[in-house]
Parts: sequence; C-alpha cells; structure tokens
Amino acid sequence: MVPPLIVSFVYGQDDAAAFIISIILCAVIGFSLYTIHIKNINFYARDGFVMVALGWVFISLLGSIPFILSNTISSPIDAFFETVSGFTTTGSTILQEIESLPKGILFWRSFTQWIGGMGVLVLTLAVLPSVGASSLHIIKAESTGPNVEKLVPKIGQSARILYTIYTVMTTIQVILLLFAGMPLYDSLIHAFGTAGTGGFSSRNLSVGAYGNVYVEVVITVFTILFGVNFSLYYQILKGNIKSAIEDEEFRFYIGTITISIIFVAINLYSNGLFSFSDSIRHSSFQVGTIITTTGYSTTDFNLWPTFSKMILITLMFFGGSAGSTAGGIKFLRIVLLLKTVKRGVTKALHPRAVHTIKLNKKVVDDNTISRTLTFFFAYMLIFLVSLLLITLNGKDLITSATAVLSTLSNVGPGFEVIGPMGNFSDFSHGSKLVLCFNMIAGRLELLPMLLLFSPTAWKKASI
Amino acid sequence: MVPPLIVSFVYGQDDAAAFIISIILCAVIGFSLYTIHIKNINFYARDGFVMVALGWVFISLLGSIPFILSNTISSPIDAFFETVSGFTTTGSTILQEIESLPKGILFWRSFTQWIGGMGVLVLTLAVLPSVGASSLHIIKAESTGPNVEKLVPKIGQSARILYTIYTVMTTIQVILLLFAGMPLYDSLIHAFGTAGTGGFSSRNLSVGAYGNVYVEVVITVFTILFGVNFSLYYQILKGNIKSAIEDEEFRFYIGTITISIIFVAINLYSNGLFSFSDSIRHSSFQVGTIITTTGYSTTDFNLWPTFSKMILITLMFFGGSAGSTAGGIKFLRIVLLLKTVKRGVTKALHPRAVHTIKLNKKVVDDNTISRTLTFFFAYMLIFLVSLLLITLNGKDLITSATAVLSTLSNVGPGFEVIGPMGNFSDFSHGSKLVLCFNMIAGRLELLPMLLLFSPTAWKKASI
Repeated sequence: MVPPLIVSFVYGQDDAAAFIISIILCAVIGFSLYTIHIKNINFYARDGFVMVALGWVFISLLGSIPFILSNTISSPIDAFFETVSGFTTTGSTILQEIESLPKGILFWRSFTQWIGGMGVLVLTLAVLPSVGASSLHIIKAESTGPNVEKLVPKIGQSARILYTIYTVMTTIQVILLLFAGMPLYDSLIHAFGTAGTGGFSSRNLSVGAYGNVYVEVVITVFTILFGVNFSLYYQILKGNIKSAIEDEEFRFYIGTITISIIFVAINLYSNGLFSFSDSIRHSSFQVGTIITTTGYSTTDFNLWPTFSKMILITLMFFGGSAGSTAGGIKFLRIVLLLKTVKRGVTKALHPRAVHTIKLNKKVVDDNTISRTLTFFFAYMLIFLVSLLLITLNGKDLITSATAVLSTLSNVGPGFEVIGPMGNFSDFSHGSKLVLCFNMIAGRLELLPMLLLFSPTAWKKASI
Repeated sequence: MVPPLIVSFVYGQDDAAAFIISIILCAVIGFSLYTIHIKNINFYARDGFVMVALGWVFISLLGSIPFILSNTISSPIDAFFETVSGFTTTGSTILQEIESLPKGILFWRSFTQWIGGMGVLVLTLAVLPSVGASSLHIIKAESTGPNVEKLVPKIGQSARILYTIYTVMTTIQVILLLFAGMPLYDSLIHAFGTAGTGGFSSRNLSVGAYGNVYVEVVITVFTILFGVNFSLYYQILKGNIKSAIEDEEFRFYIGTITISIIFVAINLYSNGLFSFSDSIRHSSFQVGTIITTTGYSTTDFNLWPTFSKMILITLMFFGGSAGSTAGGIKFLRIVLLLKTVKRGVTKALHPRAVHTIKLNKKVVDDNTISRTLTFFFAYMLIFLVSLLLITLNGKDLITSATAVLSTLSNVGPGFEVIGPMGNFSDFSHGSKLVLCFNMIAGRLELLPMLLLFSPTAWKKASI
C-alpha cells in the first residue's frame, strides 16, 4: 500500500490517512501472524490448497480496508467485492462513478490487479523465497493452467524470472502509453490493468474515454501479449524462438483471436454500426481485451449484434493461455478437449487401434486428459449452481448468466445491466458473495475452492 | 402412414389423398431398396453409425411427404423440420396455427413422435428381427444412454419386450385420459406425445387448452414414467422391485423432479403469479414435461421469474433417464459426472489412495468415465457451434440459445420467440437445417452425427 500512499501525497488528496492506518493495521496483523509458533511444519497437499483459498480471502479482506477507511465504498461487502475483483484480476466493479474518487484510492484499486496478476503468492515467493520446499504444493494450486512446465528447478528462481519479465513488460507498456499521449498516472493505471488482465480504469468510459487510437493499439497488443503463456517468453529469452512459435496452444490462441476479429468486424460493418476502419478497430480491441479476460472497452458492446455478442461470450469461456495472467478455461485445456472429442470419433471408427493424444509432439497421459475433462465439467457445474443462486435476484437471464461467467472467468463486464456501461452495484449482498466466490474459484483453477466443500479437508489428521 | 389414413377417412377430410400417394411412394422406394443386391454383408461399427444417422434423415424425408402433398406445410424445409422434430420426439414446431389443420395430418404428426419414441430402428428390429447379428452396431448407436444393460441376450427379443411395455403404457394413458374427459382423438394425440416425450399437441394452447386438472395429472405422471429407464420396468416385471427402486439414476431423477417442483412452486407463489395450489399444479406439470424433454405447457412459462426459468433450462440440459424416450444429457451421465468431480476432490486430498467410482454398487471402469466426460464436452461443443451459427439470424440471445438447447435436448419449446406460445417459423432455412442437425444429433447421442464430419467415415475401405 506504499505506492498508492505516495500517489495520494503527490496529489495532496485526503485519502493518505486511510493508507497510513491500513498499513499500520496490516503490519500489526502480519507481525502477529509471523510470531505464531507452528507446531507441525509438514505440509500436505490439502493444507496447501486450503491455505491458498483462505489466503486470497484474507488478503482481500486486508486490501479492502483503504476503501472503507477513505469512505469511498461505505459497505464492507462492496469493498470486499471490489478488492477480490482486483486481486483476482477480474475487473468487475460496484462503483457507479469512478472519476470523482481520490487518485490514491484508484491507484490502489488498479495496483491490486497488478499484484494479483502474477499471483499474490508468486509475488510473495519471489520476494520471500525463504519459505522452502513445503511451498511446492502452493505453487501447484496457484499455477494458472493444467500443466505449466517448470522453467527452472527452483521455485524461488523461476518466480523471480516470471516477475522480472512481468515488470519489464509493464514498464515498456507504460512508456508506450506515455508516447501515445496518455498522462503518467493514467498510463500506470492502464498498464496495471492490462498486465494483470484485470481491466480497472480511472475513467467512467474505460479506454473509450481517450478516443485515442494509439492508446487502443498499445493496449490491444499488450493485452494479447499478457494472455500468452509466460514460459514461452522464457523460451524466447533462452533463444528457443522456434519452439515458442510452434507451441500448439499459442497457435490456437493467435488463430482464435484472428478469426474472431475478422468475424466480429464483418458482423459490425454489415450491420451498419461502424465504418469499415472503426469496425476493425473496435473488433480488435474488444476481442483482445475479452479473450484475455481483461475487460476494457472502447464502445458499448452490449449494443452489438447477437452474433458478435455470442463470439465475445465464447471468448469469455475460453480465456487466455495457461501460465498467463488471464482467466477462463484456458486454451491449453480447450486444445486438449477438442483433441479428446476427435479421439472419441476416431475410436468409434477404428475400435481396435491404439489412440493417443499428442500435444507439441509429446504424448499426453490419460490422467491429464481425465483431469482436463473433469475440470471442464466442474467449471460448468460451478457456473450452473452460481447462476441458479444469482437468478434469485430476479434480474434477467443475460445479466445473471454473464455476471456469473464474467466473474468465474475473471473478465469484468458482462451484458445488459452489467455491460461495459453498467456495474454490479445492483446485486444483493448474497449474490455479491457468490460472485466473489466465483472470482476466487476461477482465479485458483477451481480445485482449492471446491476443496472447501469437502468435509475431510477440515479434519485435523490425514492418512 | 396407415393409421392417419384411417383417421382422415373417419373424419372425411381432404387429406386422405396425401396419405394414399405417400404410402404408394414409400412402398415403391422401400421395395426398390429391398431389391438392391448388397455385395458385402460385413458391417463395421462405422457403417452402423453412419447408417443410423443417414437413416433418420431419410425416414424424415419420407415422413414429410404427407405434409407437402396435403399443402399444410408448403415449404419442403419446414416440412422436413416438422418431421425431424416428430421422429426425434422433439416437438418443436414451425406451425403458427394448429387447430385448423386436417385431423389426419395432425394424427400423423403426433404418430411420428410415438414411432420415434422407441426409436425407428428398435421398432424395425422388433417387427423385423431377421436382420441378425450385424445389427448389434446399430443398437449400440440407437440406445439412449451410456451403458444400457442388455435385458435379454437376443436383440429382437429385448426390442419386443420394450415395445410391449411401451404400447401397454400408452394404452393405459389413453384410457386414463378418456376417463379424465378428453375426446378419443385428443387422447391418442397426447398419449403419443407423452410416450415419445415429444410434446406435439392438437391444440394451439397445448395441454393448457383443456383447463382440466385431471388431464394434467395424467400427463404429468405419465411423462415422468416415460422418462424412466425402461430396463427398470423389465426388472419390476421380473419381480426385482427392490433393485429397481434402489437404482441410483432413478433416485437422482425422482429427487431432482421433487426438488425442482418445490423450488419452482415457491418461486411462482412468492412472486404472486398464481395461487398456492395453482403454483404447485403448474410447477409439477412444467417440471415434469420439461425434465422428460416432452415440452407440453399449461401456461406461458416464458413469463415466469428468472429463477424458475433457469431451473427449467437446467432440466432441459439434464433430460430424462438413459434407456427412456427422453432426450438431453441423461441422468445416468449427470450422476457419473458428479461422482467424477467428487473423485477429483478426494484425489487432491489423498493423492496416494486408490479412487474408484461406483454406480449401483458396481465399479465403473475408467473408459466409461472418460467417454461420459467426453460426451459432456461434445454436447457443449455442438451447443456452442450451433448457437454461433443461429445467432447469425440476429435474434436475441435467449431465443437463440434456448432454440439450440431445446432441439439438441429434444425438448420442443424454449423461451422468448420460441416460448410455449411461439414457434420456430421465423428462423432462416439455414438455421432450421442446423436445428434439424441438432435434433438428430441429440436423439442419436451425438456420436453418429459427429462421425459424418470425419473424412475417414466416408472412405470405402477400412482396416
């Protein structure tokens, strides 16, 4: 919370006190936790999972203190929602008016996305690599994808590499946004939102407020870059450019973006919504920020034709690549799932032949396939149960369904009431907590949150 | 087509000629096919699958002839849609006005659902059991569920048993509907629609036109009965009542119906739509006809609150039991999928233990689990691709999504434009063909229709 404190001193607004008190509070809680003597240092897998799940809740509670103390968000549940939305890099907001808020608070709001982007725990592991071997299970719970390959054997080291790439890319984006004519403060806010694929803006009209095509191009390109598996960047740094470009997930990701941009642009143009160039401009921006689950907008895509809307909804389900800051099901899984259906068809045609699924020329074992298939069903199951709970609000189906989808995939906006010009303030407290659950579940790849429902996870002894 | 011909003679309307010509046409085509000398009598699995898929298309083409000849449906694509909807027991209609149509034509329309209900091929196998051993693959493609246990070793015999149970149950329903005060003609039409879980009615307002609570009770009970796995009835006939009642799928099916009725009734009552008794009445009827994918209506459930609508949409996905005439994903699969998620959670907690999934106290092998999981993804995939194609019509998302869902799950109506008071006439020809594909794909458990997209299925030789 030190960076936003500096910001509020620079701008001389009255939110500095809120940060000072929050920092003192966090320090006290942190030190008191540090002094707790842990009797049993042996970590089981379940402990790691449960700790990660509760850790996100706890950090979001602490992170919401400045919002409450500065009186920008009066309801504690709303403040919690906004902070969870930040740390999970979702970008859904309950704020109806953004531009009138203190600059320090808005900076903190966006900064949570940048921290969340790489994962609060990866950040913690890079800064404090002293935690040691028992943190392996935590990394397992935190990694955003079915099978992210280890970069280097030591966790602390690989976390530091990822952290460096992340920071360098953010810095480059800030510089490019400054060149495009954005003020420094706005550049930082939007670079944080892009890097974390979060999508919080300092303007009510999001990126559309600037009406600056250069800004839009920079954000489009960087949002797509931040949706790429970061281990590919490490490969490129090591000189393996060929293997990075030939990565099947990467190709499918880029291919989907290209096709979606073309289809949406044609649909927008043929429906007479925009000129030809504006159709491509808005289509590229929106496809880029939706597929990477960032959620910035330059135009009210809630008014787009049904076909374009449906493409955006599809992309919300897909999400970005595994091992990126994006949410959603992830392309690695989509590729595996499509290959599994193909195998099913081939099996029916040639029942006696041996059928293996290959990814990047390596055979994928049945266990991974089974976990990926189960993940997909679990994703739809959480979507369904949450949706049933949310519909008790009585809102229309599109609002309800896209609210659940948008939070579960960590996108941000949805359609109708929660469209790019709307917000989540209208939902009941209960619904907001369900959506908070979705955001954390989506961010942690479901399993840690599903474990919380299992009675055995809470038992003291395990076999 | 003989039964509807008799009906049109009885009522002396001018549709008799259409049936006579159709019967002659079908007879000519049938005999000419019969005389074709088949060189290679060896059937491969793929041949069975492809034959079933094309068989349904072919029979629907023949079945649409009376609609075209009698000039009740002028467009051939519309007539094809209506016939596919009949044979696949979907019940979606392109007709805007039903009551003015000739009685013979309406009888034929409902009769296709009764034939389709048990599967055109099961019927054929019961009547013509001479096809022999090579029909095993066809049965495999036709059976409505992941793992329907064989009743008796011989296919012809088990088909005949199923056929008998089906006919007896239909007859009982007709008698009960007559007792409830329905005319004979209407009783037959609605018993056909219930038995096949199709849902074609002879009235514009569907079952709601009668305003008769006894009729509604009979249809509710029988629609739920026809959504039960028929092998359980065989078990009961053999005296194994205990094993039938303890069947896990059956319990989950009945449990879901009960809970859904209660939730919807409370929701309807608390929103002030109906009196307490009418809430239970409409809730029971609608939950019963939607979960079994029948699709009859007594009231315009399109106007119900979002929560009730969402429950109905959920039930449309679920469908009835495997081995029944209902469509959808089927409860057997839902049970297995839920158990798989539970196993995934347990696995994470106890990574070293052995985890098996049991159904009715028998271990389910990994292959079946994998096929069920793949089926679920394939279902959602076909849903998604069809929906993207349908949204090109420019209709709203709810209409588009429920049109795809309703046809894929063989339900009939959906929401908004295609709600219980609406119809499918407004869709483009292309969309109607996509929806026809969905109906057949849903009815044949996806695989045979997916095979049509595989180039190897069309090759002459197989290894």
